[in-house]
Amino acid sequence: MVVIHPFHPFPPRGDVRTVRIARYTHEGEVTFGVVDAQAETVAALAGHPFGELQPTGVVLPLSDVRLLSPMLPSKIVAVGRNYAAHAAELGNEVPEAPLTFFKPSTAVIGPTENIAYPPFSSDVQYEAELAVVIGRMCREVPHSRVNDVILGYTCANDVTARDVQQREGQWARAKGFDTACPLGPWIETDLDPADLAITCTVNGELRQAGRTSQMVRSIADLIVHISDAMTLLPGDVILTGTPAGVGPLAVGDEVAVTVEGIGTLSNRVVKRG
Amino acid sequence: MVVIHPFHPFPPRGDVRTVRIARYTHEGEVTFGVVDAQAETVAALAGHPFGELQPTGVVLPLSDVRLLSPMLPSKIVAVGRNYAAHAAELGNEVPEAPLTFFKPSTAVIGPTENIAYPPFSSDVQYEAELAVVIGRMCREVPHSRVNDVILGYTCANDVTARDVQQREGQWARAKGFDTACPLGPWIETDLDPADLAITCTVNGELRQAGRTSQMVRSIADLIVHISDAMTLLPGDVILTGTPAGVGPLAVGDEVAVTVEGIGTLSNRVVKRG
Repeated sequence: MVVIHPFHPFPPRGDVRTVRIARYTHEGEVTFGVVDAQAETVAALAGHPFGELQPTGVVLPLSDVRLLSPMLPSKIVAVGRNYAAHAAELGNEVPEAPLTFFKPSTAVIGPTENIAYPPFSSDVQYEAELAVVIGRMCREVPHSRVNDVILGYTCANDVTARDVQQREGQWARAKGFDTACPLGPWIETDLDPADLAITCTVNGELRQAGRTSQMVRSIADLIVHISDAMTLLPGDVILTGTPAGVGPLAVGDEVAVTVEGIGTLSNRVVKRG
Repeated sequence: MVVIHPFHPFPPRGDVRTVRIARYTHEGEVTFGVVDAQAETVAALAGHPFGELQPTGVVLPLSDVRLLSPMLPSKIVAVGRNYAAHAAELGNEVPEAPLTFFKPSTAVIGPTENIAYPPFSSDVQYEAELAVVIGRMCREVPHSRVNDVILGYTCANDVTARDVQQREGQWARAKGFDTACPLGPWIETDLDPADLAITCTVNGELRQAGRTSQMVRSIADLIVHISDAMTLLPGDVILTGTPAGVGPLAVGDEVAVTVEGIGTLSNRVVKRG
């Protein structure tokens, strides 16, 4: 049975049209806000961003706040081998059914936090991805309603301990260790995701360059497929796969994922303390 | 670095020694409570059960409340092929490294809820398991501290769409669909889990009968291995694998998991609405 929670229809979002929703700390408080990239400010919101947006009137310079992951999702559902060239570079076929796995909430970090290289791996790799943020509780979403359940889009790095992934049959540890899911810098709600450039750089050098139009399964196909099995909750995140060019990270590296129309998610790699 | 959150050392738990912690609804409110199985009552607790237990003084007959899953975990980390006879019955080897995967919070149901047979599978199976409930935030737990991070034990059914599991390389949909994680009926905090009988019946017929002493990796080994990679939060659940005898469920079946010293978790299978 199709279940799409009717709570808080969106859009409209008040008088705001193009919206970049961030989550940040300022003076010890965690707040959602709307980023104005030109003015370099963030306008605080009352409560959560799933309904009509309610600005509190407080506007801060972006330089005065610390951006967090724009969501703290109850679950992250990720999709493997969704770009044919990436499947091929690791010697894999494109799977007949989408290959879906979870990353846990404890793996999520924001754009100002570090990727902590875990001691049990010696081959931690970057994977630049477009992330979809779910806006409504839903299950068995039909193709025609997919846009109704999406809040917006952000950048993700599906950080992977490749050696552990190859050694262990299921990927909970390889892709679920602490800090293995950078998300950010904000959620762009007004974006056509059909053909966006995705790039990954390490210390400024280009390593991945793909386009979302190269996905084997579209965002709509993925949401239909995943929500066929499980309820998605507001704030849940779908990772849509990585293009070709994955490779290793080392302690000290600065890895940056850029998705056209969203922005850049940059994280430093440190040794786990 | 070993991280074991010092908050709320336990035991002691006030003057209570053997404790069965349940979560229930009564008159629309969700409450944790301590079950007295002989008196068939539940004593309400103020707040959560992770610190010293604080009874409110309200005691209700068990028949007046509806038991829920005793926890709503942020994540469930499950382990595959942890009983050699079960690995063999599906034609698998015991893996060299523990095979770990996640089930999402949206899959959790309690002892009075139904398993909804999903339309995308025609081979949904039961898997009776001992579940460990984590009591403290922790990471990189050493063997010597494992008991310090365990709140207690409950029964679990790692419900699995076997056909989907065999078709899809990763198990997010096969083991993560809504209602695929019955937990309950309560958390037994005072239990030695080393050698407990685990059984599964379907409509009263015995289908699985194993002992926790048959686990390939012990509970301590699993917690060390999982927490090496990721932070565990209070209420997170570890599923420890299923003994031999797994098999299919059909709409209308009543499936019951019993773990010695804990109790019985019984759920009816219905068609998804």
